[in-house]
Parts: sequence; structure tokens; C-alpha cells
Amino acid sequence: MRKGRVTIPTDVTFVDGTKRIADLWGADAVRDCDGVELPENAKELADKVYNTYFIVRGDNEWGRKHPEEAQRIFLESERVTANSTSLTIDVSKGFLKDQIDPDFINLDRWQVFDRTTNEEIHTWKIVDGKVEIETTPYHTYSVDFLARVTWHPVQIYNYLTNNWTCEKQLSYDPAYPNTREYIKRYMQEWLDKHPNNNVVRFTTFLYQFTLVFNDLGKEKMVDWFGYAETASIPLLEGFEKETGIRLVAEDFINNGNYNSPFKNPDPKFKKYMDYIQRFVTSVVKELVDICHKNNREAMMFLGDDWIGAEPYGPYFKDMGLDSVVGSVGGGVTVRMLGEIPHVKIHEGRFLPYFFPDTFFPGNEENAIAELNKNWMTARRALLRCPLDRMGFGGYLSLADKFPAFINRVSEICDEFRLIYETSSKSKPHEVLTVAILNTWGHIRSWQAHMVAHELWYQQIYSYQGIYEILSGLPVKVKFISFDDVLNTNCLDDIDVIINVGDEHTAYSGGEYWNNTILIEKIRKYVAEGHGFIGVGQPSSTDNKEYPFALGDVLGVNQEKGFTLSQDKYNINKHSHFITEGLNNIDFGEGMKNIYAYENTKVLHIDFSDRFKRNVNVGEVKLAANEYFDGRSVYIAGLPYSSENARMLYKALLWATHKEDKLNRAYADHVEIECCYYEKLNTYCLINNSLENISCNFYDINGEKEIISLLPGETKWISK
Amino acid sequence: MRKGRVTIPTDVTFVDGTKRIADLWGADAVRDCDGVELPENAKELADKVYNTYFIVRGDNEWGRKHPEEAQRIFLESERVTANSTSLTIDVSKGFLKDQIDPDFINLDRWQVFDRTTNEEIHTWKIVDGKVEIETTPYHTYSVDFLARVTWHPVQIYNYLTNNWTCEKQLSYDPAYPNTREYIKRYMQEWLDKHPNNNVVRFTTFLYQFTLVFNDLGKEKMVDWFGYAETASIPLLEGFEKETGIRLVAEDFINNGNYNSPFKNPDPKFKKYMDYIQRFVTSVVKELVDICHKNNREAMMFLGDDWIGAEPYGPYFKDMGLDSVVGSVGGGVTVRMLGEIPHVKIHEGRFLPYFFPDTFFPGNEENAIAELNKNWMTARRALLRCPLDRMGFGGYLSLADKFPAFINRVSEICDEFRLIYETSSKSKPHEVLTVAILNTWGHIRSWQAHMVAHELWYQQIYSYQGIYEILSGLPVKVKFISFDDVLNTNCLDDIDVIINVGDEHTAYSGGEYWNNTILIEKIRKYVAEGHGFIGVGQPSSTDNKEYPFALGDVLGVNQEKGFTLSQDKYNINKHSHFITEGLNNIDFGEGMKNIYAYENTKVLHIDFSDRFKRNVNVGEVKLAANEYFDGRSVYIAGLPYSSENARMLYKALLWATHKEDKLNRAYADHVEIECCYYEKLNTYCLINNSLENISCNFYDINGEKEIISLLPGETKWISK
Repeated sequence: MRKGRVTIPTDVTFVDGTKRIADLWGADAVRDCDGVELPENAKELADKVYNTYFIVRGDNEWGRKHPEEAQRIFLESERVTANSTSLTIDVSKGFLKDQIDPDFINLDRWQVFDRTTNEEIHTWKIVDGKVEIETTPYHTYSVDFLARVTWHPVQIYNYLTNNWTCEKQLSYDPAYPNTREYIKRYMQEWLDKHPNNNVVRFTTFLYQFTLVFNDLGKEKMVDWFGYAETASIPLLEGFEKETGIRLVAEDFINNGNYNSPFKNPDPKFKKYMDYIQRFVTSVVKELVDICHKNNREAMMFLGDDWIGAEPYGPYFKDMGLDSVVGSVGGGVTVRMLGEIPHVKIHEGRFLPYFFPDTFFPGNEENAIAELNKNWMTARRALLRCPLDRMGFGGYLSLADKFPAFINRVSEICDEFRLIYETSSKSKPHEVLTVAILNTWGHIRSWQAHMVAHELWYQQIYSYQGIYEILSGLPVKVKFISFDDVLNTNCLDDIDVIINVGDEHTAYSGGEYWNNTILIEKIRKYVAEGHGFIGVGQPSSTDNKEYPFALGDVLGVNQEKGFTLSQDKYNINKHSHFITEGLNNIDFGEGMKNIYAYENTKVLHIDFSDRFKRNVNVGEVKLAANEYFDGRSVYIAGLPYSSENARMLYKALLWATHKEDKLNRAYADHVEIECCYYEKLNTYCLINNSLENISCNFYDINGEKEIISLLPGETKWISK
Repeated sequence: MRKGRVTIPTDVTFVDGTKRIADLWGADAVRDCDGVELPENAKELADKVYNTYFIVRGDNEWGRKHPEEAQRIFLESERVTANSTSLTIDVSKGFLKDQIDPDFINLDRWQVFDRTTNEEIHTWKIVDGKVEIETTPYHTYSVDFLARVTWHPVQIYNYLTNNWTCEKQLSYDPAYPNTREYIKRYMQEWLDKHPNNNVVRFTTFLYQFTLVFNDLGKEKMVDWFGYAETASIPLLEGFEKETGIRLVAEDFINNGNYNSPFKNPDPKFKKYMDYIQRFVTSVVKELVDICHKNNREAMMFLGDDWIGAEPYGPYFKDMGLDSVVGSVGGGVTVRMLGEIPHVKIHEGRFLPYFFPDTFFPGNEENAIAELNKNWMTARRALLRCPLDRMGFGGYLSLADKFPAFINRVSEICDEFRLIYETSSKSKPHEVLTVAILNTWGHIRSWQAHMVAHELWYQQIYSYQGIYEILSGLPVKVKFISFDDVLNTNCLDDIDVIINVGDEHTAYSGGEYWNNTILIEKIRKYVAEGHGFIGVGQPSSTDNKEYPFALGDVLGVNQEKGFTLSQDKYNINKHSHFITEGLNNIDFGEGMKNIYAYENTKVLHIDFSDRFKRNVNVGEVKLAANEYFDGRSVYIAGLPYSSENARMLYKALLWATHKEDKLNRAYADHVEIECCYYEKLNTYCLINNSLENISCNFYDINGEKEIISLLPGETKWISK
């Protein structure tokens, strides 16, 4: 148990140190890192050597020789209001000149829009490199233009952040047959030149997620799911040939949302995404085959140019990848990585990164705190769905200067291996099955409500908490789509549905809730004895008086200002199984103007401190409702916290009539979670806090004993 | 100055006391009150005697004789979800049986709706007094039914509140020719029987604002603007004859909003409202003529059965009324009453009401505090637009037990008369003209954002503050509609427009902002040098990416979740003329997810204390923008406070390029307001606080002097 499943960074200047630390941590793999070189004898350091590989950048000679084969993107210029009958727009204004080069050769792909009417207009021409438009006074205009991407966005980020001075990396597009042949040729050449590795770590494949910089070199737009940089002319032509659909610039711009994953996808663009996935798969497969022929494993880094390689998509298996690696930010990312099908190895890169921003003299305590926090947030998810490997990145020599840190990592590596080994022998016990219901469903498993790869946004943290909580609960989690509900029997093995998000978004569902078949199906499902949990503006529609299509199921609705004249009296807070013992539930941003129907049980209500009235003017935060034989819970919002996690667990149990399952494989303190491995009759108890905690522990039969855990402890109990 | 313009209540048991207090207060009119009788010699007590009169209730003998001529209302039953193919709905469930009597005779006026699809369905019948419906399982249904109103709603309120035991008053409908003749005859008879009055105080006319009670006798629905109780069969028939439009129940129910004034009115229903106004006017005119023929003045109480008698409507003048009286809640109600055209006398009834809930032993200080508060909130509006008379209601004998209270009223009556006399000689100085732009415009002057006659609601107080502030600022205030902007030159004499309210409501404008002509007109107006102030969700549309149609004018927009991927950096708070010296601006409920465009000046931004990021994720609360030659200000919300009043005043000055007018007829403390009477070269300074205040006072030429005011003082300075 002291060896294996751990990857560490190394470099040519730290060979002996690498050996020493590999031994301490039981590392069996080494990897290179941005800006460093693998030692020549890397294979002596570990069983596996990972070597970073880029497909569509890095060879500027090729890029310079074939400027017409650069990658492209459709962008919207700034929006300008005319105050006369003409207007000139400089499309490149606001963009980073080194990244974005307007493609004046393919002007037939450009469009100009009157954004006041959202109609395309054709009275424009190029004058001195700018767009001159005939306008209606006091209408607003913008230009959807095609541009060549002349600097790879991820390099821009590293370059500007670290003050690099090396050459700026051009991009090239394998959708051009010439470049496609080239990248295959280059792959073989590279493998020949780099014999000291076993694993090609693709960082990543063909098309970068949307990442655009502004004229000051600051990030202007970032969408980790964005297909904007697949605006490839050969692909657009190929798609048109296959489907007869000629996509235009506005199909990519979409009134400025750039097909955000928060938007229900346009059917045309969804087809194009599928086309891109098939194309990326076919190219990547060729490269993976070359790797395999050369006795190398192929590993995907889940990030950077990953667009079109959706790991939960239908074509992922066809790439033939061996492994996947990604960074671990918390429980959600553990599950996102860990559940990816069709690869043998799932590896998580843990924090902190061994970079000088953390590893500077005197900062060891903070480094350890970050390590512990990252480990503790990931651990509860690892218990449910273990990763096969863990690793770190950065400069190992920096970490080596913090001996207590090195020691703590060593303990964590052991804990990691023990978790892996236990769960490889026995599936963790799952009390019920919950489905997250949204527009994307399975293909975006554990990726709902992400912006820019897990950045904090005021608009989303109250919803992201749901996924983070679920990542560590003893329940089976599925991601299903509205189309699944409409077209399959997916609900058959699901105990409770969760619908979470803001109105009109792809996460709450938007237009889907105009579909009465969907409404009937879900109502019937709940009425027949199942559970439904709505968070935020679940099932919200454009109905101004009764926006929640499932208001009857939820027992609440949202006041939009049109029924203020109707008194709403259900304002008494009831004690309830769900909230018993929980006094600090955090609703995050909450949701305004929610009122409860007459027979609904209000579990939490926040009156304004400005004026107390004995009618409800919209402050319900938590409510429970009986709906025929089923049950429903409404939650205004739920960021991650230990208490919130406990509350959601109890809500799931109540909604599925499983209250009697609460005191089974359970600790009655919110900071202590329990994972039960049935086949081994073993319990893993974790302390998610930095306090000593004693509480009651109930085994699977409900037998009670008192247990004590040290701060952050992982405790195993075998019976 | 010690006599006149004051009305007091009296009754047969307090004649001498009335004389004494009338003398102290300078009262020249007496009135009766609910549940009391005027003394026979009332005319000896004062110059004018008001006598309360009801038109459509009070004669139960008539009501009982003509049950088919009762007033009617369309109501929606509860909404019920079917779980099989049939459903039975008891329409009267949840209503007060004594008030609401389902009209099974006119079943052809009933409708049944599938509320899941919002389609009318016809597969229903009445069985045992209930509605049996053939249903689609898991659809929701409700019945729009016609009911007779068998107990006058205002009496219900008084009856249940005061535990009355008298007979319950029936209602009758003068739309029936029989009843119409009867009410004229009765008017004459009543005048003959009541010779001891000069003024008939109509309380009020024909149709009650919507007021419906539930089965527990609690208010179920209240809309002070509601036309629901004009669901009169003869009127519906008359309207159909005139217009060819057959209104159905759902035209009144409107998916449960009952034509809330927050909703842009349906054109059909707006026509019906006009028809009702003409009908009410024609009937009331006949009664007023009878009063005049009998040498009585006709006074309207603005409340109760006032529907169809819109004081700012086109037919109001035709009723020939002499005066109007209403209760004063604050500045807005003063202006709403005071600006009513076509009547000679505007009277305000001040608080507190002389009822036992305030006038009980030991509560004199609180009674005085309520008096002072009411006076001080009304006073700043009275300076701008004086009422002709003030008055009180309740039992004078109760007030008489509080000598300090009696004394304070006496002072206030003197202040009131001085304000009246000053302003009758000189219009107060107005620095600029501001227009509130909404769907209703002039006809609902000073009535925007009212629910149930000025009740506090979490959803509206942040907008109501704008009107309350404006009621006392040295600016001319107009209320204009989108139709005015589209069809007239109303903007010609307006310096700055304010658009305030939640998205989709009649106050922000809803569908109107899909009209590009409107957008062009407003943009041009601002661009040419005028001002625009948006509060809440101004000009908001269904555009999910850029909801504010005037985002370019305002320099801000609202993030709806679809452009989160785009970085918004404008987060630096700028110092500005508008906020200088103001550190406690209160944005009330504020507005979430507002971000500023690049060139906009952010004046206030509230970062979440959960996580600070250096991009704006939507916390702008106040912003200023230059738009061509014009200026615009965005405010997230603005409840009434002295500091907020000062901020809005400065915003108005800045938006109209009148910053140089700030130190003119102005006191530089937020609690001190100044009204300047140009013709008299007289300044009235008021202290809106309960503190002693010294500050700089600037006269109209900018000459500065230091002034001091006592708590709540009114100070006159003549030059």
C-alpha cells in the first residue's frame, strides 16, 4: 500500500530529489511540466513517464508557411449606436491584436446586424479595413466577423502571466487536409525523437475552448464549453455538404451569448457540435493509433483544446484513449474525471501547484492548509468514486523546501491508495438514485453550471453547491436530459429528480417546460410516489402569473409582480424531518418572491427586516409538499457547506419516503460523513472539519456507538 | 390665518366639545363618521356640514327585492391538478360564503380552463352545485365563474374588524335600469330627509375596487385599481352592442392576474374600462345634478366604490363634482389628491384616525408622534402642491382627552393655512420638468406602483420611493405614457424621463420596448441633450442577452446568465457630483446582476462578501453615463429617505446638465429642504428630521448664509 498510483513532476535539474520524493510518496510515474525538460534517464525514475504533447501549436514554421490554414473564430464587434445614417465600426477594437486577425479574405462569412431589431442588414462595405454601414439613426449595430487565431490562447495566458519572451505560438487547423497529414507525420517524428516516455499526455487535441483576450491582454471571454473556435471553413463546408445546413456567423454569435451552455442549444448548432465531435474523434483516433503502434499510452488532459472530445459523448470511446487527467478542484471535478467511461486510468492533479506563488519562504503552513483543504473537499467524492491515480504539478524542487508539506503529502498518498483499494473490492453503498434533470443530461455529467471551469460567480454558486454536495453523498447520481424523459424510460430506476437553476437557462430547462408531455410525465412520476426537488427557479416558464410549470408539484411559485393583489398567508415555519437539528442552512443568493401554496409546509422563510407583515410577500426559502403519493422539496439555493450537505441528504430521504434509512451507516454530526462498503462490511468515516468531533455513529443495522475523530481524520471501521 | 380650511368629525354626543375644538383649530366644516349621527344643529357648528352617502348599498329592502340586480364579479376557482380523467371543482371553496354567491343562472358566462395549456375546455357540467370536468391526467384546471356579490366588501371589512352585528349590506347594480331609476329617486328622498348638510360626501359611487374575502373572513384579494366588480351583465351586453366585442370571464381573470395594474392592459379590456368610465360618469352626473338642484355640494371620497371614476381620466370633469377628499399617507397621496383637475376643493384626511386603537389612556405621546410623522411626510409635498383643506376622522371626543395632541393639531392647522395662502399667491419655483414614463401615464398620476392603496410590499417599496421623493422636490412632475411618446410631442417640454420598475410590468413597460419607434424616439431625445433615469429593470425586454432596450443609453445592462462567459471589468467606484457628500444611499431591494459598459461611470457597487473577484459579476447599484449630448443615470432601487431624496435631486440636475443650479434655493443638509416662492421672494425651509440642524442655506442667487432649524421646524425666510 506504500507504492503506486501517484504521479509527480520532475525535471532535468532535480533528478536525485525526484528519486527521494518518489520513494517517500510511493510515486510510480513522473511527468514534465510547462517550461521544463524531462531528464534523459526519466524512465529510471519511475515505471511511467508522461510527456506533454501539443497537436495544433508549437511548430511556428508550419504555421507561418500556411497562414490560410490557421484556426478561426467568429467574433462580434463592439455594439455601436448610430446617431446618423452611417456608422463605421473597427471590428478589431477591444481585441488583442496578436491573437485576433480579421479575415478580410472570407468576407462572405461576415454579417452585420441591426441589434435594435436583431435583423441582418446588407448595406455595408469595407473601407480602409473598417466596416462602413448605412444605418437607421438610433439603432445599434454590430459586425459578426471571421478572424484568424494567430496566437494560441492558452500560451497567451501563460506568456502574459509569467512574462515570457519566447516566440508566440501560431495555431493551425487539421480540418485542412494538408495540416491533417502534417500532424500525423509530426506525431511519428516526435515519438521517434522522444524515446524516453511511455505516456503521451495530449494537452489537448484540436480545438481550444473559447478563450479570447482584450486589447490590454486581459481575458475578454472564456467559455470552457465553447465551440467558438471550431469556426473552421472546411468544417463549415463539410457540415453543409452532410446536412444541407449553411451555418452563418450569427449561428456562432447568437446575439452575443456565443452558444453559452446556459442557453438551450439551437438544434442546428447542436448538430454542428455533433459533427465537430465526429471530426475530432476521427483525427485523434489516428494519432492515438500512432502512439499505440509506438508502444505509448495516450492520455488526454481534460482542458485546453478539448472541444469536440466530450468525455461523456457518444464518440469518446472511438478515440481509443488509455487515460485521462484533469485538475481536482473539489468533489465535482473528482466525479467529472472519475466517471469518464472507456478509459482505464483516471488521474487527478491535486492542489497546490508547486509554483512560486505558494512555495515561497515562510509560506509552508498555507501550502499545507491548501493541500488539506483540497484533499478534504475531494476525499468525500473519492470515497464514492475513486480516481485511479493522483498527481501533482509544478516544480518538485520548490515543494522539497517544505519538509512538513512533503510529509503530509506522503500521508495523503497512503490514504488515497487505501481508498482506492477498498473501493476496488466493494462498491460503496447507495441509499437511492437521484437524477439531475437539465437540457444537457449525460453528455455534460458533473459539468452543469460551470463557468470558465469552476470559477466563482455570484450567479451560480448557490446552484453549484447541489452538485458539490451530491459528489459525496451515499446516493447514486445520474444526469438526464429532458429529451431522455420525453423519449426513453430513463425515469424507471430513479427515485428522485433534481431540477436546479435560473429561469430560461438550460439547467432549469427554459422552453422545454412549454412541453405539456414533459409536464405530464414528471407530474405522473411524482404523483405515483417518487420525489422531486427544485432549486432556484425550477421548471420556470414565461407564464407571468404562475411561472413554475411544476408549481403544483413543488407547492410554491414565484411572484413576478402580477398577482401581488392576492394575499398569500402561508408564512408559518414548520419543524420537519428535513431541518431537524439544522440551524444554519445557507441559501446563498437565495431566490426572491417565492410564496407557498396553502397546503405546503414552509420550512424556512426570511422576512425583510424593513417591515413585517402577516402576509407572505415572497420570502419562502425552503418548503416541502405532498403531491398525491409523492413528495417534493423546494430550495431557494444551496451553496456547499457541511450543514447544507446534510440538509440535502435528508431532503432526498424525505422526498423518497426513506426517512427510516437516515440512521443507517450514518454519523449524527454534520461534519462527519460515512461511506459504507457493503461487501467488506467496512465503514469509512471522514471528518470534514478541522475540529475534534465526537458523535453517534449508526451502522447499517442502526446499531449505535459513540465515535471520535481528529480534525480532518479518515477513520475505517470494519465489522 | 387662524380660521378655515379644516374639517373635523362630530357627533350628536359631543356638540359642545366640537365647538370648543373647532375654535381652537379654526375648523369651518364638520363631518359624520362611520357608526355615528350628525347632531341636528350641525349647521350651527360650522360653515359646512358633510354627510356621508352610499349609492349602491344601505337599502337591503331594495337588495332583497331585486336579487337578480346584485353586483357581480368574475372569479377564478382554485386550481386543481387531475390525476385521472375527471375532476370535480367546488368553485366557492376558499371564498367567504356571505360575500360570494356563484351565479348558476348565468352559466353561459362561465368558463373552464386547462391551466397547463391555458386553453379553454368545454367538457364540463354542473353536478350537485359543483363543476365536473373531463380531464387529461396531470393537467391543472380552474373554473372562471360569475358570482353575485351579496355583501358589500367595505362593510365586511368594518364589520369583521369591529365585531359589528348589524345587518349585512347587500349590493345593487345601477346598470340595471330599474336600479338606476331607484338610486336617483332615493337620492332625492335622502336629501329631503337630511336637510342639515351642505355637502354630500359620496363614499363612493357605483363599483367597488376589487376586494374579496376568504372563507375565514380574511382578505383574499385586494386591488385598489381593480375593475373586477364591474362584471355587470347589462354592461357587458352594452359594451358588446357598442363595440362588437363579447368579453368572456377570462378577459377578467387573465390567468389569475385579474388585470392587475402591473400588467400592460389588454386592448379589449382597456376599451371596457373606458366604457365603464363613461357609464359611471353618466350615472354620477345625474346624482350630482340632483345634489346641485338641492343646493348641496357633491364631494367624492377617493376610495371604496371609486372604480370607473378615474380622477385623471377623460370623463371626470363631466361628473360636475365640487370636491374630492382622500386620506393622506405621505407625499404621494398629497400629490395624487392635490393635482386632481376639475374640482374646486381638494381635501386631505390626516392621521391618526381618532379611534380607540390609538386614543387609549397613556398613549398620547405615540399619537403625537404619528401626527408629526404624517404631517412631516405630507408637508414637503404640500409645499409643492397645497391641498385646499385638511381634516381628521374618527371620534373627536377621544382626541379631546389628549390636550397636548389637541394643541399640536392646532399648530399644524396654522402651518397648513400659511402654506396654502403662500402658495395661492405664488407658484413654487421648479428647476426642471421630469416625466415618469410608464404604460398608464397621466390617467394614473401618482398612482404608479401602488398595491392595495399604499401597502408596503417587498416587491415595490424600492420603486415607490422614487414617487415619494419626487412629491417634495422642486421639480415639475408629469406622468406620461408610451402611447404619448409614440403619438404626441409630449417630450418637447420635458427635461428628463424616469422609467422605473420590474421587467415586464406596466411600469417599466414590458412589450412596449419591442417597439423600435419608441426606442428611436427616446434615444434621440437623450442624445440631443436630455436626461434619462432608469430604476430597477428600466426598458427591460425578453432579449435574454441584452435585456435593457436602452442599455446603450443607460450604460448598463443585466446579466441573465447567458453572457457570464464574457468578462466585465468596469468595477471601479468613481466619485461624482451625484454622490458627493452622500454616504448612506439606500438601494432597498436593489437589483441583481447589473453590470456597466466600459465607458460608464460606476458610482456604487456592492461586492458579495463571499468572494471578491476583480471582474464584475453583477453588483452595480448606481451608474452614470454620457450618451451623445445627453446623460443617463441607472439606479438599482431607491426607497424614500432624506439622503435618497437628495441623491435623486442631484441625479436629476446632473442628467439635465443643471449642476450649476444645485446651490440655488437650497440647504446643504439632506434633512433640510427648501421651497422657493418666486413672486413673493420667500423661502420655506423644512426640517424633515427630529434633530436640531444648522447648515448652509443658499438663496436663489447663490448667496450663502447659515441657518438653524428646530426638530421638524417649518421656517419662512422672506427677502
